[in-house]
Amino acid sequence: MSVADRLTSLGIDLPKPAAPVANYVPFVISGNIISISGQIPMGPDGLAFQGKVGQEVSIDDAIRAAHLCALNLIAQMNAAVDGDLERISRVIKLGGFVNCVDGFGDQPKVINAASDLMVDVFGDKGRHSRSAVGTNALPMNVPVEIDALVEIS
Amino acid sequence: MSVADRLTSLGIDLPKPAAPVANYVPFVISGNIISISGQIPMGPDGLAFQGKVGQEVSIDDAIRAAHLCALNLIAQMNAAVDGDLERISRVIKLGGFVNCVDGFGDQPKVINAASDLMVDVFGDKGRHSRSAVGTNALPMNVPVEIDALVEIS
Amino acid sequence: MSVADRLTSLGIDLPKPAAPVANYVPFVISGNIISISGQIPMGPDGLAFQGKVGQEVSIDDAIRAAHLCALNLIAQMNAAVDGDLERISRVIKLGGFVNCVDGFGDQPKVINAASDLMVDVFGDKGRHSRSAVGTNALPMNVPVEIDALVEIS
Repeated sequence: MSVADRLTSLGIDLPKPAAPVANYVPFVISGNIISISGQIPMGPDGLAFQGKVGQEVSIDDAIRAAHLCALNLIAQMNAAVDGDLERISRVIKLGGFVNCVDGFGDQPKVINAASDLMVDVFGDKGRHSRSAVGTNALPMNVPVEIDALVEIS
Repeated sequence: MSVADRLTSLGIDLPKPAAPVANYVPFVISGNIISISGQIPMGPDGLAFQGKVGQEVSIDDAIRAAHLCALNLIAQMNAAVDGDLERISRVIKLGGFVNCVDGFGDQPKVINAASDLMVDVFGDKGRHSRSAVGTNALPMNVPVEIDALVEIS
Repeated sequence: MSVADRLTSLGIDLPKPAAPVANYVPFVISGNIISISGQIPMGPDGLAFQGKVGQEVSIDDAIRAAHLCALNLIAQMNAAVDGDLERISRVIKLGGFVNCVDGFGDQPKVINAASDLMVDVFGDKGRHSRSAVGTNALPMNVPVEIDALVEIS
């Protein structure tokens, strides 16, 4: 099953890749590696989630935010390979940051929404290494930021 | 001196590599690079350390936790190279996160336990670049999480 | 315009690359990638900035601190390529950590000082991917730490 078919069967319309909020680029290709800048839960109408998990943001909303970050990562991959997502040969790593209260320990549960989407969309090629950590603050007070390293063929 | 000999002379029995706590894999090999997922202080009987450095966790226990994270990193490397640790040609980078109180500034001292173990086990090939930062929260309230990039020949 | 010329026209004298504060190395070269350890705002007379952004450290000082971290990154690149900065073919990624109060959301504005310097010094080769996150604590209570991945030709 192609990545395009999987996206269709999942009912996913890739978002427009978000422009960086400062003087950098959304991705860099070096050899057969793409490094993708940290993506935040930007939706079609702006930031879809803001606040700290365990305070204003519920764990369910944090999971939705991580899913949206992952969609934005895939949108950047799509831009990097000029729309041919079959060229993504492996998602190497996701780096997940969860803006949360002290003592919150469910970062894996939150970032799992992004991990699940990678496997749903890319199959075994989407199986990645990962770090998931908490933080006391993120840009524009978003609850989740995720960056990625991806291999292309 | 081989890596196996060094492990023996250090009295180290590698732990069983820990299974990921969510939908991802413990390592990905891309070309001659292994990306290893963030390892936590998981011991034979479960989490060996929990809590925040500067609060429930002393700096000495944080150092022990970092050592255990590093043992788990080496266990994952060992699994990635099918038990032939001589194939590890360089530890490229450790990324260390220390769950600590505000104002704590001894992250280098904590993560040094992991850095020391890499050099003890791999010799000059174990000399790596590193970032060490604090965080207000980590998965399952562990005090330390460390991920790694490693080169294989 | 060469990188050396750009440095001159920007009035930049590269600092001496800072020694690591623990048992690791300032950079590792693997294939055509340099991984540079997290750099802190170390100046000629020691740490130029200490404290938390939003508390003792103003956003303007945080921006200066990020600029200094970036200078230190370039000094490490310079050491890695034996003084021939023309060999830097691309800055792949900056990873920026800002020690800040809860709710601070201007990490991009702070880390932008580092991003700007990369583009000023390396031109289009300096355009990089990036993550910028907050943290509640950094080594020696510095306000900013930045690491990097760089491609050499």
